[in-house]
Amino acid sequence: MKTDVTLKPGERIDDLQRNGRVIIQNPARFCFGIDAVLLSGFAKVKKGEKVIDLGSGNGILPILLEAKNDGESFTGLEIQPENVDMARRSAEINGTEKVSFVEGDIREASQLFGKNSTDVVVSNPPYMKAGSGLTNPGDAKTIARHEVLVTLDQLVEQTAALLKDGGRCYYVHRPFRLVDIFASMRRNRVEPKRLRLVYPQLEKEPVLALVEGRKYGGPELKVEKPLILYESDGATYTKEMRENYGF
Amino acid sequence: MKTDVTLKPGERIDDLQRNGRVIIQNPARFCFGIDAVLLSGFAKVKKGEKVIDLGSGNGILPILLEAKNDGESFTGLEIQPENVDMARRSAEINGTEKVSFVEGDIREASQLFGKNSTDVVVSNPPYMKAGSGLTNPGDAKTIARHEVLVTLDQLVEQTAALLKDGGRCYYVHRPFRLVDIFASMRRNRVEPKRLRLVYPQLEKEPVLALVEGRKYGGPELKVEKPLILYESDGATYTKEMRENYGF
Repeated sequence: MKTDVTLKPGERIDDLQRNGRVIIQNPARFCFGIDAVLLSGFAKVKKGEKVIDLGSGNGILPILLEAKNDGESFTGLEIQPENVDMARRSAEINGTEKVSFVEGDIREASQLFGKNSTDVVVSNPPYMKAGSGLTNPGDAKTIARHEVLVTLDQLVEQTAALLKDGGRCYYVHRPFRLVDIFASMRRNRVEPKRLRLVYPQLEKEPVLALVEGRKYGGPELKVEKPLILYESDGATYTKEMRENYGF
Repeated sequence: MKTDVTLKPGERIDDLQRNGRVIIQNPARFCFGIDAVLLSGFAKVKKGEKVIDLGSGNGILPILLEAKNDGESFTGLEIQPENVDMARRSAEINGTEKVSFVEGDIREASQLFGKNSTDVVVSNPPYMKAGSGLTNPGDAKTIARHEVLVTLDQLVEQTAALLKDGGRCYYVHRPFRLVDIFASMRRNRVEPKRLRLVYPQLEKEPVLALVEGRKYGGPELKVEKPLILYESDGATYTKEMRENYGF
């Protein structure tokens, strides 16, 4: 681990509790959440595979996926230069050459990386539609949360273009968008093959949906058992969360 | 309750444990399952509404929905004359004039009942694609389980044609068909608005999906808390099953 990387004002270094990996974050911009961590466990990357993360923010997904898997490369595409700079410095500290970041627009991903070039695409995209009531559409948090710069449809379209035949994609999103997600995936020939819903507690509605798609896959969805975050006390993480995700 | 209705060979009368309602069943043909009972609890029928059940089999859904709700009429459409005959005799025993059955093809439902005529459509359709390996495609159980006489797409198309603007539909189906269901509903402008997944136990994959759609509804899905059938012993029904469904 390199230690001579410079932190900028407002930044801090967080330990990811996984193979000694760390990440630089700036709470004023955006910090990764449980959604990215859960997606990094839901996604499967095989030996030698190339992974692209569409909208990588501060780089949490490529860094976590590299720590957990034996893929060949883990590339984050990110439009905000401040995020790319921060992610590159995190990768430098971690000393992982398999992880890299490209500054660019998701809507141009298949031009940047080439069509049918990628084994695995992952994304933790903005969950909310853009709408008209946004006060700071250029703000880093707004861009991460709202479809200001890229819509779900554009994301799936680029996923389909990037993937090799039979390639897989993994998204985390909100359950209320599930019909949008499935419809867009099927329209773009990236068939939804696996769904896991994430519930805060057993008796609550799900808050996240983890979806796996396969390019040109046949129509049959496997819905997995619920992923439950907390015991009924609402404070203690469940066994699965502690054992598989280090909470 | 009338008691002079004649049972045919192989038939029996089952008590539905709800307002004294009974149903005639023939185990050699098909007996209703937990899916119909769960759908009758998931579906909402308001006072004065007209309900049509597409593919009513022995009539379980119209009979249960009438017992639980204050709708104006509960009509089952069924293609197999033996089923229609059995369902009509069940309605006669129950003495419920609001419940009736029509012999006919789901694919002609909107011609039979009129377009934009219905407040609520319910269906417990065949779950499996027809395929080529069916040995008895004309068998009553095969017709109930496989898409021999009607496909999911045809069912949804007829649902959309039957419903008034803003009318609702309620389906029970298998989770592995969820993408097919959502895609077909959206294509036919009956937007999926509510989803509840049914799990045999907490740690298992879901076995049934309950879906509510609304004609011309906007795109936002509410995914509800899990419906769990059994406690972790795998034998005792959960509190919800006992209190809401009489198990």
